[in-house]
Amino acid sequence: MPLTESNAEPPFDVLRVSHVELGVRDLDASRAFYEDALGMVVTAEDERGMWLRGLEDTCHHALLLRRESPGKCLRIGFRVRAEADLDAVARYFEGRSAEVTEETPRGQGRTLHVHDPFGTPLAFYHRQDAVERHLQRYDRYRGAAVQRLDHVNVFAAELQETYDWLAGELGFRVSEYTETAEDTPRLWAVWLHRKGNVHDIALTNGVGPRLHHVGMWVRGEMDVIHACDVLAASGMGAAIERGPGRHGISNAFFLYLRDPDGHRIELFTGDYRTLDPEFAPIRWDLDDPRRQTLWGHAAPKSWFDEGSQFEGLEPRQPRLPVRPVVAR
Amino acid sequence: MPLTESNAEPPFDVLRVSHVELGVRDLDASRAFYEDALGMVVTAEDERGMWLRGLEDTCHHALLLRRESPGKCLRIGFRVRAEADLDAVARYFEGRSAEVTEETPRGQGRTLHVHDPFGTPLAFYHRQDAVERHLQRYDRYRGAAVQRLDHVNVFAAELQETYDWLAGELGFRVSEYTETAEDTPRLWAVWLHRKGNVHDIALTNGVGPRLHHVGMWVRGEMDVIHACDVLAASGMGAAIERGPGRHGISNAFFLYLRDPDGHRIELFTGDYRTLDPEFAPIRWDLDDPRRQTLWGHAAPKSWFDEGSQFEGLEPRQPRLPVRPVVAR
Amino acid sequence: MPLTESNAEPPFDVLRVSHVELGVRDLDASRAFYEDALGMVVTAEDERGMWLRGLEDTCHHALLLRRESPGKCLRIGFRVRAEADLDAVARYFEGRSAEVTEETPRGQGRTLHVHDPFGTPLAFYHRQDAVERHLQRYDRYRGAAVQRLDHVNVFAAELQETYDWLAGELGFRVSEYTETAEDTPRLWAVWLHRKGNVHDIALTNGVGPRLHHVGMWVRGEMDVIHACDVLAASGMGAAIERGPGRHGISNAFFLYLRDPDGHRIELFTGDYRTLDPEFAPIRWDLDDPRRQTLWGHAAPKSWFDEGSQFEGLEPRQPRLPVRPVVAR
Amino acid sequence: MPLTESNAEPPFDVLRVSHVELGVRDLDASRAFYEDALGMVVTAEDERGMWLRGLEDTCHHALLLRRESPGKCLRIGFRVRAEADLDAVARYFEGRSAEVTEETPRGQGRTLHVHDPFGTPLAFYHRQDAVERHLQRYDRYRGAAVQRLDHVNVFAAELQETYDWLAGELGFRVSEYTETAEDTPRLWAVWLHRKGNVHDIALTNGVGPRLHHVGMWVRGEMDVIHACDVLAASGMGAAIERGPGRHGISNAFFLYLRDPDGHRIELFTGDYRTLDPEFAPIRWDLDDPRRQTLWGHAAPKSWFDEGSQFEGLEPRQPRLPVRPVVAR
Repeated sequence: MPLTESNAEPPFDVLRVSHVELGVRDLDASRAFYEDALGMVVTAEDERGMWLRGLEDTCHHALLLRRESPGKCLRIGFRVRAEADLDAVARYFEGRSAEVTEETPRGQGRTLHVHDPFGTPLAFYHRQDAVERHLQRYDRYRGAAVQRLDHVNVFAAELQETYDWLAGELGFRVSEYTETAEDTPRLWAVWLHRKGNVHDIALTNGVGPRLHHVGMWVRGEMDVIHACDVLAASGMGAAIERGPGRHGISNAFFLYLRDPDGHRIELFTGDYRTLDPEFAPIRWDLDDPRRQTLWGHAAPKSWFDEGSQFEGLEPRQPRLPVRPVVAR
Repeated sequence: MPLTESNAEPPFDVLRVSHVELGVRDLDASRAFYEDALGMVVTAEDERGMWLRGLEDTCHHALLLRRESPGKCLRIGFRVRAEADLDAVARYFEGRSAEVTEETPRGQGRTLHVHDPFGTPLAFYHRQDAVERHLQRYDRYRGAAVQRLDHVNVFAAELQETYDWLAGELGFRVSEYTETAEDTPRLWAVWLHRKGNVHDIALTNGVGPRLHHVGMWVRGEMDVIHACDVLAASGMGAAIERGPGRHGISNAFFLYLRDPDGHRIELFTGDYRTLDPEFAPIRWDLDDPRRQTLWGHAAPKSWFDEGSQFEGLEPRQPRLPVRPVVAR
Repeated sequence: MPLTESNAEPPFDVLRVSHVELGVRDLDASRAFYEDALGMVVTAEDERGMWLRGLEDTCHHALLLRRESPGKCLRIGFRVRAEADLDAVARYFEGRSAEVTEETPRGQGRTLHVHDPFGTPLAFYHRQDAVERHLQRYDRYRGAAVQRLDHVNVFAAELQETYDWLAGELGFRVSEYTETAEDTPRLWAVWLHRKGNVHDIALTNGVGPRLHHVGMWVRGEMDVIHACDVLAASGMGAAIERGPGRHGISNAFFLYLRDPDGHRIELFTGDYRTLDPEFAPIRWDLDDPRRQTLWGHAAPKSWFDEGSQFEGLEPRQPRLPVRPVVAR
Repeated sequence: MPLTESNAEPPFDVLRVSHVELGVRDLDASRAFYEDALGMVVTAEDERGMWLRGLEDTCHHALLLRRESPGKCLRIGFRVRAEADLDAVARYFEGRSAEVTEETPRGQGRTLHVHDPFGTPLAFYHRQDAVERHLQRYDRYRGAAVQRLDHVNVFAAELQETYDWLAGELGFRVSEYTETAEDTPRLWAVWLHRKGNVHDIALTNGVGPRLHHVGMWVRGEMDVIHACDVLAASGMGAAIERGPGRHGISNAFFLYLRDPDGHRIELFTGDYRTLDPEFAPIRWDLDDPRRQTLWGHAAPKSWFDEGSQFEGLEPRQPRLPVRPVVAR
C-alpha cells in the first residue's frame, strides 16, 4: 500500500488526543474501578458525571464519565495548539457543511462539537482548567497509578478513508501499520500520532466507527502487575480481558480491562519516540502473529469483536471483510 | 480431609529437593534455552550431558541434561542434611526390600539411587562439589537470571498415598492443598516442603507418576518479563506455554515454559516463609478459580495433560478421576 | 581467623530471630512510619503499646512498640522449633546461673525472658497467636509493603566471644564475615543464621551490646524506591539515613531508615540460600570497600556510630579498637 | 522573575537536541563503558571515532566519541523539523555575523556548524542516516539498556541571557526553574524543551559555558539498578558519582556517571509531558533541598563544580555568584 502523505500544513494544528467521554450507569462502581484500581484522580463529581485525570496531569480531565447512555462513547476530545486553531477548526468543518456547536463545558475552555466525516462525535478545544498535579503525591498512589491518557483506538468500517482523512487532511503521521498479505495489499490497521510517540489514534478494520479502547499511560510493568493484584484482591478480577503481554506493534507492555460498563481500557507502557524524519513507518503482515503479541497469549474473541458504540451513530460493516488469523 | 500428621522424627533428614536429571536430544538447543534465555550457568559439559546451576548456586548442578531418553525425566535429587543421613536412607529402603545402588556421579558426593514406593527414580546425597558462585557477576546476567532450583511438581496417580508417604514417613510439611468439593472431600493436590518456604515438591492428581514441572527461582517479576522478551527476540517465543500470571496457591508470580524436549520449566517468584508453627496449611476448593489463577488467563489444556514420563516407569491412571473445572 | 565450628547438636533448636521490642514515645508518629510508609499491619494496640506484623505473617507480631523507655531496645525474640525446646532453654540458662522469668505476653505463648552472657535481653518462645495473613490483600498494600522480619544486627563489644557463643553453643551458622587485615586477622563482623538464608543475627564490632538495626524483608527494589517516594511525599524524608544501594556482603539491596525514636530499620531484599553443606562462609577484608557497598555511597558517620541501647544495659567499649576505613 | 515569553514563531523550528560529540582518549575504554555498561549500540567506528545510538533509535548516532581533545565537548547537535529550516538557520546566524560552516559528516545529512552567542559549538541538521532499530532485539540488551538521548545540561555563566536567547529567540519553552530567595529573585537554573517533555536543554548557573551532563533515557528504575550492578561487577564502580535518587525537579529517577574521560552521563527516567497550554512552569526556591533531591543523598562537590569544557572556549565566571546550599 502506498501510504498517504501526511499533510505537512494541516488546516489546524492538533496537539494530541486529550480526553474521552464515556456513558456509565453507576458512578460508585466506576469510581471503585478508576480511582481505587487504576489510581486516577477525581477532579470533580456532580449529578451529571465525574471528571478524572492522571497523576501527572495538570489538565482538568482525561476522562469524563457521564451518567447517561451507559456503555456508549459520547465523544473524543482533540486539543489544538493555539486558540486561533479553534477558528480554523470552525472554518474547516463549516466549509464542509458540517454542523459546529460551540460550548464551554465544565473544566474546559471554548469547545467546538462536531462529527468527523464518518460520524464520530469529536470535541475540539485549546485548553482545560489547570488543576493540581499529583505527580509527586506518592502517598496517594494507588493501583495502576495511571499517569495520563495516551491514545484511543477505534474500529473503522471505512479504514482507508478514515486514515486518508486523518493523515492527508489533519496531518496525523503514521508510526506502524498492518496490511493484508494480498498481491495488492490493503491497509488493515494503522497507528497515527501528532504528539511524537507511537499514537494518538489507532484505526482497526471492523464494524465501526466504534471505540475499541482508551489507552492510559502507566510508569512501567510493575504498575501493571500491581493493578492485576489489586483488581483480584478487590473482587474486580473479571475486569481483566487480555494480558499482560507485549505487542509487537508499538512494543507496548499491555493489559486490557473492561470497566463496569464494558468500556475497554488499556494500561500501556514502553513505546518509543517518532519525531525524527528518518524514522520510517513499520509495516506488519496481517498474518504475522508477533504483530499482535510479541509474547503472551492469543487475544480472546471479545477483544476482536466488542467495542463501545458512539452515541447516535449506527456502526457499519467494514468494507474490508478480512479478519486476522487468531494466533495459535 | 484430615491432613496426615507430618513425621516430626523422620528416619533421615531431607534438606531440600536439589536437582533434576532430564533426557534431551540436542545439547546445543538446550544450551540456547537454559543458558541464553534462562540465564543459567553451565558448570560442565561432556559427551554424556551438561551440568547447569543457578547464579547464586555454589553447588555443582541444579539441572543435569543427559544426552539419552529425550523427553524423559531420569531422576529427582534429594539432599540430606548430614553424611550420616545417607546410611539411614540405605537402611530405610533396604528395610523395605527396595534396591539401593551407590554411585559417585560427576560433581556429586556419595549418592544412593532408589525408587520411591510409586516407582519414581530418586537420588539421595549429602553434598555436591563446590563451584564459583556467580551471584555478583552481574556482567554475566542474561535472560531470566535464574538464581536456583526451588521445587518440582509431579503428577501422582495415587495422590493420597504419595502424600502420606512424603509427610507421614519422610517428614515433609504441608503449606497448601486442594480438596474436592464433595461431602467427604478428597485431596486433589498438595504442596509439601522441607526447607521452609511453600514447597520442595507438589503433587497433582493425574496420570502418573510423571514430572509436571521444575520450578526455578527468579529474583522478581521484571526478570520474568525480560525472559519473555528475550525468548521472543531469539525465536523461542513458542516455548511460552502459560503466563505470566499469579497463582492463588503459593502467591507465586509464574511463567511456564517448555524446553526444546518438551520438559516444563516454571519461572517462579513471590512465595513466603512457612517456618512458624502457627502457620496453618491453606485449604483451597477444587472449584475455586482463584486457586490456579489469582489473575491471568486460564491454563491451556496441555498444561493440565502433559508431563515428562520417568525413565522406565509406565504411568498409571489416577485413582481419583475428578478433574478441575478449567476456568471460564 | 579459624572460624568456630557451629554446634551441630545445640542444647535447644532456635528456629529464627522472630521479633523485636522497641521503646517509643508517640504511637501516632510510630504508626505513620510503620503502617503508612513501611506498610506493616497493626495487629493490636493498647495503652502499653502496638503490635505489628508483615504482610505475609500469620504470627501475631514481628515488632512490638512499647510506650516506655523511648529509643531503647527492650528485647529480641527468638523462636524455638518445639515446645520441648523451651524446657531445654530453661535448663540451659539456669544451669549457668542466669535468671529465667516465665511469662505469657499478649499474642504469644509461654515465653522465657533471659539475658545472654553479654547482658542482651532475650525472649524465647515457641509460638505466637495465629492471625490473618494479608499477603493477598493487595488492595491494602502501602509504601514499602514489608513482608516479614528478616534479621537483627547488633554492635558487640566482645565480638569474638559473642560469636563463639552463638555459633559454638547455640548452633548458629556463619554465612559471611569480615576480618582485619593483620598478620593474625581478627574477626571484625559476622553474619549468622539458623533459618537458611544469610542471617538471623549479625554482629558488628563496636560499643555494645547495642542494636544496630532491625532488617525487614521487602519483595524487591521497586518497593524500596516506592518507600522513598512515599516518605518524601509524607514529610518523612529525613528518616532516610543511607541508601538505596547494594551491599557486597549478603548481596542485599538496602535502605536504612531511622524511625521517629531513632531506631534504625533496614529495608532488605536480594540475599540467597545457605542450606547446602558445600556453601563455604565468605570472607571479606575490612579494608575492601565493596564489602559495605558494592555500589552506592559511603555510609554517613551516624550509621557507624549510632544504635539503640538495650534497656538496663550499659554498653561497653569494644575489645577490638579497629575501625573500618570509611570509603572514599 | 518574570519568565521570558517563549517565541511562538521562532526563525527556525528546532525539533530536539539530538546528539553530542565528546572528545575521548581510548575508544576501547569508552566502548566498555557505553556498550557493555550503558547498553548503547555501536553504529560505526573508524580511526577518528565511534558513533553510538540508543536501542530504540533509528538515527545513526546519539553520541559521537571523537579520538581528539579528550575530556572536551566538541559540539551539541540540534535537529530542525524540515530541510527548509536549515536555510533559515543559515540566514539567522549569518544575519548576526556569525560564521556558518556547512558539512556533511558521517551518518548525517547537510549540517551547519555555528557557535551560539555565548560561544557554544552547535551543529544544526535535519536528518541522519536511518539504521536498524534494536528496540525489540531484547537478546542484545545489556546493562542500562539506554533507549535514546533525552537532553543536555550546561553550566551558563550568563544564565539569564542564555535563557533569554533560547526561549525568546529559538522558541524553547520552560518546564521548571529555580530562583534565588532574594526580594528581587534572580533565575538560577532553568529547564527548557522543544519536544514536549521536561527538557532538551537545562541551564545551571556556574563557570561556563561548560557541559554539565548528557541525559540518556532508560526504561525504568530497574535498568538503573542493573547498570549499577554491572558497573560494580565490571570494575567500573568508581564511575558512579551520584545516586540513584529522585530529583524534585523533573521528578526524574537519576544516576550520574563519569565516563572514562570524565564526561558526566545521567541515566534518566520518570519525567512527564508538558504539551498542554495549562501546564505552568514550576518554580523552585534555591534553598529548597527537595529541588535537587526529593530523596537520596546530597550531591558531592564534584557534581556542583566539574563539567566538560567546550573545545576552543574558555569558560567564564558566572555573573550570579550565588551558590546553592549543599543539602545537609
